[in-house]
Amino acid sequence: MSFSTDVKRYSDQVEQWIREKLPVLEVPEKRILEAMNYSLLAGGKRLRPVLSLAVCEMLGGNPQEVLPFACAIELIHTYSLIHDDLPCMDNDDMRRGRPTNHKVYGEAMALLAGDGLLNLAYEILLEASFKTKDNQEACLAAAHYIARAAGTAGMIGGQVIDMEAEERKLTYDELCTMHLKKTGALIKAAILTPALILKARENVCHALETYAEHIGLAFQIKDDILDVEGNSEIVGKPLRSDARNNKSTFVTLLGIKAAKEKLRLSVEHAVEAVKDMKQSEFLIQMAAYIAERDK
Amino acid sequence: MSFSTDVKRYSDQVEQWIREKLPVLEVPEKRILEAMNYSLLAGGKRLRPVLSLAVCEMLGGNPQEVLPFACAIELIHTYSLIHDDLPCMDNDDMRRGRPTNHKVYGEAMALLAGDGLLNLAYEILLEASFKTKDNQEACLAAAHYIARAAGTAGMIGGQVIDMEAEERKLTYDELCTMHLKKTGALIKAAILTPALILKARENVCHALETYAEHIGLAFQIKDDILDVEGNSEIVGKPLRSDARNNKSTFVTLLGIKAAKEKLRLSVEHAVEAVKDMKQSEFLIQMAAYIAERDK
Repeated sequence: MSFSTDVKRYSDQVEQWIREKLPVLEVPEKRILEAMNYSLLAGGKRLRPVLSLAVCEMLGGNPQEVLPFACAIELIHTYSLIHDDLPCMDNDDMRRGRPTNHKVYGEAMALLAGDGLLNLAYEILLEASFKTKDNQEACLAAAHYIARAAGTAGMIGGQVIDMEAEERKLTYDELCTMHLKKTGALIKAAILTPALILKARENVCHALETYAEHIGLAFQIKDDILDVEGNSEIVGKPLRSDARNNKSTFVTLLGIKAAKEKLRLSVEHAVEAVKDMKQSEFLIQMAAYIAERDK
Repeated sequence: MSFSTDVKRYSDQVEQWIREKLPVLEVPEKRILEAMNYSLLAGGKRLRPVLSLAVCEMLGGNPQEVLPFACAIELIHTYSLIHDDLPCMDNDDMRRGRPTNHKVYGEAMALLAGDGLLNLAYEILLEASFKTKDNQEACLAAAHYIARAAGTAGMIGGQVIDMEAEERKLTYDELCTMHLKKTGALIKAAILTPALILKARENVCHALETYAEHIGLAFQIKDDILDVEGNSEIVGKPLRSDARNNKSTFVTLLGIKAAKEKLRLSVEHAVEAVKDMKQSEFLIQMAAYIAERDK
């Protein structure tokens, strides 16, 4: 099967799980469910849960076991976007070609919808871990890995560095640290989660970690390049603002040529890490896709 | 030992756990740790974890096993206060006699500090559940109970009702539902958590649930009475605003006399639920304290 067929197959599973399972998880206050769904069903790429399902399949696991964890990660990602877009943070009006959550529901509801998605992610992780009676310890290890990645040691810590970077120029190393935490940690958690649930061998986990770090970085470098070279209608948000806002990005720090070379190298390192693993074609193609995507 | 000695003993254990364990949990970005600690160590009553420890002792459990869960609940409570105080929510400047989190650290950091505390609560719950190898299922049940109480079916759902109540007068039943969710759910989780961890019998859990619902309501009714009759210096925030803001409270809906009678009845029902249980003196005195407190 081709890469794009696989992506479709995985993301369909994700969409189906989210659409079927969420209402069952009881969100009795209708307005907040609406606000949560607005961002959750906004046509995101589902990169993180797609990666989880791909690794699960590669390791011969049961996708039904991994899906709740994969989707919980997508919920955490979605909450972070809602809070990031708020006026007190990036103050963004558009996301994925639509008005941001607070533009539609107001700031207070957007704040609570973000809180609600983060909390719901943990309700899902705890429920899924509780239900797998014979694999609770591995599920708990995976859930804890996700929690660490989402927290102050990971994504939230990266957001703090990002916020402080508004006041001064970051060094190249600080920029890498910021992205390894802000976006990299959750991408890595998505890739490691199935390995932890399926109790993969240590060398497999290590290879996947290396792969994850490099595609995480590649993903961000490409984002920075798209801000300069992308089509804002395809990307779904206004572009060309990084240089104007004096923002520290791979392009503003390295220049476009060196940024592209860094992107190429990141993809190369990612591929190197997994190319000797069985059935790693999808992961290899994903690395290439991340560098070539136009949105 | 007297009630106040017990309260001191329990809350000292909570303070010690929070102060010793939190830095160990690695919050590498110093500024956000500072903001999280500012609210977490702001001299709150620690009502929720104190209740957890009291129930743990009553049931003959080991407080060390319950402490991480009790403190995670306190973290969830603290995050909800930070987000509630934000300009887009209640826009409060003072809390517990000090400027609110965003007044000191700015809105963006306060938002992230709240997110960080919520996430850290789950890191703690997952780590504690993972570590208790011989009681993982019961710990997971407790953690899941807490997550449900904190989420859209509980506390966040109550905040949504509260927010929508700004536009119209609530009925008495809606007011009760709002408080049972907004503050009641987490108080109930604090009381049930040790029972779930210690696998208490169903009739014990049921009695504790009834007790929790009534003291949760009593707590809120007393809050509403304090807004009218309290001393703002002792309470630590400006008072007398409920009537002016046309807010739905037990006092504005029932009048002060009927609110006091409702408070008396709630305490009576709470006491009734646990009075035949062994060693329930602390819970009985706590119910009375909630009604009599001046802050």
